[in-house]
Amino acid sequence: MSVLSSHVLGEWVTPDAEGRPVSDAVTGEEIGRLATDGIDMAAVAGYGRRVGGPALRELSFHQRASLLKALAGYLREHREELYAVSARTGATKGDAKFDVDGGIGVLQVYASLGKRELPASGPWLDGDVVPLSKGGTFVAQHVMTPLQGVAVQVNAYNFPVWGPLEKLAPAFLAGVPSIIKPATPTAFLTAELARLIVASGLLPDGAVQFLAGSVGDLFDHLTEQDLVSFTGSASTARQLRTHPVLSARAVRFTAEADSLNCSILGPDATPGTPEFDLYVGQLVTEMTVKAGQKCTAIRRAFVPAAQADAVVEAVRDKLAQVVVGDPSAEGVTMGALAGLEQREEVRRSLKSLMDGAEVVFGDPEQVEVRGADAQRGAFLSPVLLRGSADSAAVHEVEAFGPVSTVVPYSSAGEVVELAARGQGSLAGSVVTADAEFAREVVLGVAPWHGRLLVLDRADAKESTGHGSPMPQLVHGGPGRAGGGEELGGLRGVAHHMQRSAVQGSPDMLSAITGRWVPGSARTVTDEHPFRKHLEDLRPGDTVVGGPRRVTEADVAHFAEFTGDTFYAHLDAEAAAANPFFGERVAHGYLVVSFAAGLFVDPAPGPVLANFGVDDLRFLTPVKFDDELTITLTAKQISPRASAAYGEVRWDAEVVNGNGDPVAKYDVLTLVAKRSEAADA
Amino acid sequence: MSVLSSHVLGEWVTPDAEGRPVSDAVTGEEIGRLATDGIDMAAVAGYGRRVGGPALRELSFHQRASLLKALAGYLREHREELYAVSARTGATKGDAKFDVDGGIGVLQVYASLGKRELPASGPWLDGDVVPLSKGGTFVAQHVMTPLQGVAVQVNAYNFPVWGPLEKLAPAFLAGVPSIIKPATPTAFLTAELARLIVASGLLPDGAVQFLAGSVGDLFDHLTEQDLVSFTGSASTARQLRTHPVLSARAVRFTAEADSLNCSILGPDATPGTPEFDLYVGQLVTEMTVKAGQKCTAIRRAFVPAAQADAVVEAVRDKLAQVVVGDPSAEGVTMGALAGLEQREEVRRSLKSLMDGAEVVFGDPEQVEVRGADAQRGAFLSPVLLRGSADSAAVHEVEAFGPVSTVVPYSSAGEVVELAARGQGSLAGSVVTADAEFAREVVLGVAPWHGRLLVLDRADAKESTGHGSPMPQLVHGGPGRAGGGEELGGLRGVAHHMQRSAVQGSPDMLSAITGRWVPGSARTVTDEHPFRKHLEDLRPGDTVVGGPRRVTEADVAHFAEFTGDTFYAHLDAEAAAANPFFGERVAHGYLVVSFAAGLFVDPAPGPVLANFGVDDLRFLTPVKFDDELTITLTAKQISPRASAAYGEVRWDAEVVNGNGDPVAKYDVLTLVAKRSEAADA
Repeated sequence: MSVLSSHVLGEWVTPDAEGRPVSDAVTGEEIGRLATDGIDMAAVAGYGRRVGGPALRELSFHQRASLLKALAGYLREHREELYAVSARTGATKGDAKFDVDGGIGVLQVYASLGKRELPASGPWLDGDVVPLSKGGTFVAQHVMTPLQGVAVQVNAYNFPVWGPLEKLAPAFLAGVPSIIKPATPTAFLTAELARLIVASGLLPDGAVQFLAGSVGDLFDHLTEQDLVSFTGSASTARQLRTHPVLSARAVRFTAEADSLNCSILGPDATPGTPEFDLYVGQLVTEMTVKAGQKCTAIRRAFVPAAQADAVVEAVRDKLAQVVVGDPSAEGVTMGALAGLEQREEVRRSLKSLMDGAEVVFGDPEQVEVRGADAQRGAFLSPVLLRGSADSAAVHEVEAFGPVSTVVPYSSAGEVVELAARGQGSLAGSVVTADAEFAREVVLGVAPWHGRLLVLDRADAKESTGHGSPMPQLVHGGPGRAGGGEELGGLRGVAHHMQRSAVQGSPDMLSAITGRWVPGSARTVTDEHPFRKHLEDLRPGDTVVGGPRRVTEADVAHFAEFTGDTFYAHLDAEAAAANPFFGERVAHGYLVVSFAAGLFVDPAPGPVLANFGVDDLRFLTPVKFDDELTITLTAKQISPRASAAYGEVRWDAEVVNGNGDPVAKYDVLTLVAKRSEAADA
Repeated sequence: MSVLSSHVLGEWVTPDAEGRPVSDAVTGEEIGRLATDGIDMAAVAGYGRRVGGPALRELSFHQRASLLKALAGYLREHREELYAVSARTGATKGDAKFDVDGGIGVLQVYASLGKRELPASGPWLDGDVVPLSKGGTFVAQHVMTPLQGVAVQVNAYNFPVWGPLEKLAPAFLAGVPSIIKPATPTAFLTAELARLIVASGLLPDGAVQFLAGSVGDLFDHLTEQDLVSFTGSASTARQLRTHPVLSARAVRFTAEADSLNCSILGPDATPGTPEFDLYVGQLVTEMTVKAGQKCTAIRRAFVPAAQADAVVEAVRDKLAQVVVGDPSAEGVTMGALAGLEQREEVRRSLKSLMDGAEVVFGDPEQVEVRGADAQRGAFLSPVLLRGSADSAAVHEVEAFGPVSTVVPYSSAGEVVELAARGQGSLAGSVVTADAEFAREVVLGVAPWHGRLLVLDRADAKESTGHGSPMPQLVHGGPGRAGGGEELGGLRGVAHHMQRSAVQGSPDMLSAITGRWVPGSARTVTDEHPFRKHLEDLRPGDTVVGGPRRVTEADVAHFAEFTGDTFYAHLDAEAAAANPFFGERVAHGYLVVSFAAGLFVDPAPGPVLANFGVDDLRFLTPVKFDDELTITLTAKQISPRASAAYGEVRWDAEVVNGNGDPVAKYDVLTLVAKRSEAADA
């Protein structure tokens, strides 16, 4: 049988070695062999750093986002190829879609986040400008720059497509090249994914390398600019974390490990309520999807003592309908485990669990199998246990398969303590319609969880369920769950970047960040900045308008016109009693309306629309006959690659006759590009 | 000589043990002994978790911030006591102020951040509500909850006051109890700080414990809810990081280690320019303040080859004026190192450095000392070296004392590479008035730095300098600098909390977070919510106003009144050519002004002022004769402990007659408390 190829140093290589066999989970037939013998791992890391990194950093966030989107489209077109290979991992069609479509979804979400939330050019700025001095000549800005190393991604066997894409997407968007290491039992499916990625021709050379086998001595060649993202067992996480080179060079290491996740049924959710049914249905789903081989699956099902019997009965009824077998056979609803070794491991764990729990459904040693050979394929019956809250094994031993334990509890306080005995979980769920119970339990168990789902009749239809990590949300949990954090929207991108506080004068920070920093030089010319196309505008371009006097008549008229007759504008006596005003004042909305009248250039031109205002603060009340002056300065210019215009953020400052700041805000406009104007 | 006392389990204990002697850095005289023999470290951790943690979590962020402020005030009153002890560490009065006042400043900054930026009640919410479904019934919110363990803080000897306070402040504000472990040579000064903290009586029992000596087997008792923050040498960081319990339980570990920080002189900064003088002055300061015992001090001074001679000469001239000696002696400008061991260590490092660099100022073996015995005190001359960029030792060997090496470079590209050869630094500086050079070098070296200062004539007067971490900015750097991150404003608080993604229906998330989530129930009653005092308002309280028709006359009038005659409002033909409008539209400011007219309740009442607007977006253009309806819902209610009012954030949504969203924004108001209204 042939050795699977690795894609390194820009080409496919097939080691000339015996290799380690990987087998079809359903038939036991050997599919291929894994080996990376002879691959120079120092060169692989070096290729990523020397070729992939610079190519990625040459692109903007928006360009990288576009490539992710294109890759998602390409994989979507070829997803049937992935489904086909997926069946050989023991996955049903539903499992395969979960894995493949889920992974493509991660690419799409990151593509969209990159275009919507990250800058078109220049470094990603973290937070606002930080004032550091009274005089304003010394300020700071945190900037995020991509690490100049490689992201080594060590994947788990249970999500051979979703897992690698979940790690690739944020690394790629950050500008960091990936080295993908698949898990042994399902490496042949990740190899198919790698083949498609390379065949797409979409990604820059060196941006993705793939090792069809061991990482060899790769870790020995890592530096402070590299990262390791690991998904797998807690014990392997522990071992990798203490690798001497990782600790000596403080290589960023994140782990996401399977954990003893819990699902908690609320005391309100008695049989007959929608929540009771949701709880039972979700538990069965979590036990059987991917044959329970999910890091996030429910291992501990906490139910009010009074409902324990009813829950066990209802779950048994549903489990009795599960059909185990070859995923391609008609009617099969649960496939095989990833391999025979995995099944042996689950059986061993079940033995430990049975110290503190009894089996109430399923036989760990045998199962009826449809369309396949029960001995050669890695089939296992779903196994439901019922255990005691006091049992140490229930909180410590994980059977990584279609196995869960029902554990009765007596109070909200107790169930919070029980949840914590898992010593850190990826995900938890609370199934209840009682908001007070949900609040107490969610906030109580949150320190032990990366993600928590509250499931009830209101969100059930749209809920993605207990077990599904979402790219927008953090994935990872404390302690046993690995202590890492992945995804989480842009947080996952930030994990691949260095945050640096940059201190300097406002002018220096404007030059470095590309965003105009208040306090730095403004450019006032005869040409109104609203007459400039996007390409011609520069941060600092400024228009000054005013002064305009605000009269008592203006305020009275505005009140009458808008209907905003708030006493502070009209009633001298009442206004005098107001602790902030002391006398009548102009409406804030009048101030910004007058300000717009002072800065707007009315004739048609590149400025197409004002689509919003951010961070408006009224700082000094405007008294009658105050004179207002507005200064509007282009702050940030963000072209959109795919549109004939871009966004311009303007710094707006209104002052009174004494120079006191009256209002500060950002004005957001859409401004046409030059070429478009020529077309128009 | 007596053993110093530890403060554990709510009391001062003095171990009955021989102990390890610590000495006066100036006279060599023994000051006391360190021992923690007999202290039950499991009990210490347990006391923090069982007593300190719950007491802290019982308080709100604002209450904890108030306690930090009070502690800062108390320490400020007693700072002369700290200065006095500080002199015995070898510190000059200036050094002592840097350490003591700097530490008090950290408390003040965190107190202020806590009150200004963190919620008055409920969990800290990270980011916005995340939509997860089309129908809007399934959304998420990241929440931050305090870890329910202890923060073990292992400090370095060079900042015996600032260091512990820098770690204490964010932990305390987060709600996590601290266990302070001082560094051996200067433990007697940290002991004085601990004595003052306890004597203040301000902090809850168990919130701070102090170990005057080794942590013993404390690490063996840590869990996934605990943290270890370490400051010290890179080699110790490496050792602690791989502690078996820390890796097995994924205990959060952050390290801040001394590193080979660099300062880069720009090619523009030739002799005679202000930047040249700033560079030289800063280098001498960094070499001599705290006798160069700062993790952030400049070890590598990169200068354009053409200026190397001039820089060496100018630095030598200044170093020649440094007076080394007893800090209490007249005219002394540089004190002793922390101890004789530290001096031996610096001399050893200097020998390695001299492989690739030559000494151009100072004699490592002898120095003229004022007012003290040069043999008994840990005195050392400032030593300037001149080295080659090719020397490995220059980039790898740190002499942790008044030592720096001038290294010539030839181009911006080369100096970026040289900076990176430090393999990760806490801080770097670029001294230049050339913004283009600054941009290239800062963005180039940022992936290797936690903080970067650009120093020039514009910020020199207000700059806090190369070596000073600021509580508002991240402190820590990649690789050799420890790979950790501390401070950084609220980021430092977040490091002590667990981020959890909570998924559910809008109503559930409203109940859990205490903030009204769009899509959840609104409460409309006969009573206008503007008539409710702060205590009576509830998230979800709503007023609906309108409909109001916007006529052509309204728009024309508003244009004339405000002066905002933008063509899209008035010129039908030009508006038709606008890609977003297609016809004339109402001003955005008119829409929000009319909306205010629809929701405001005019009579004097609890609502005192509208102080701002956030996140205003205009979503659908308003055409002539559209009818507007506004819905205003109380979203977040934030009482201020020390004021007669609080802030209320309202969700505002304007729709047209078709129900299309026209504008969405948050309205910010100040609302009086009930008692105050009674007084008024």
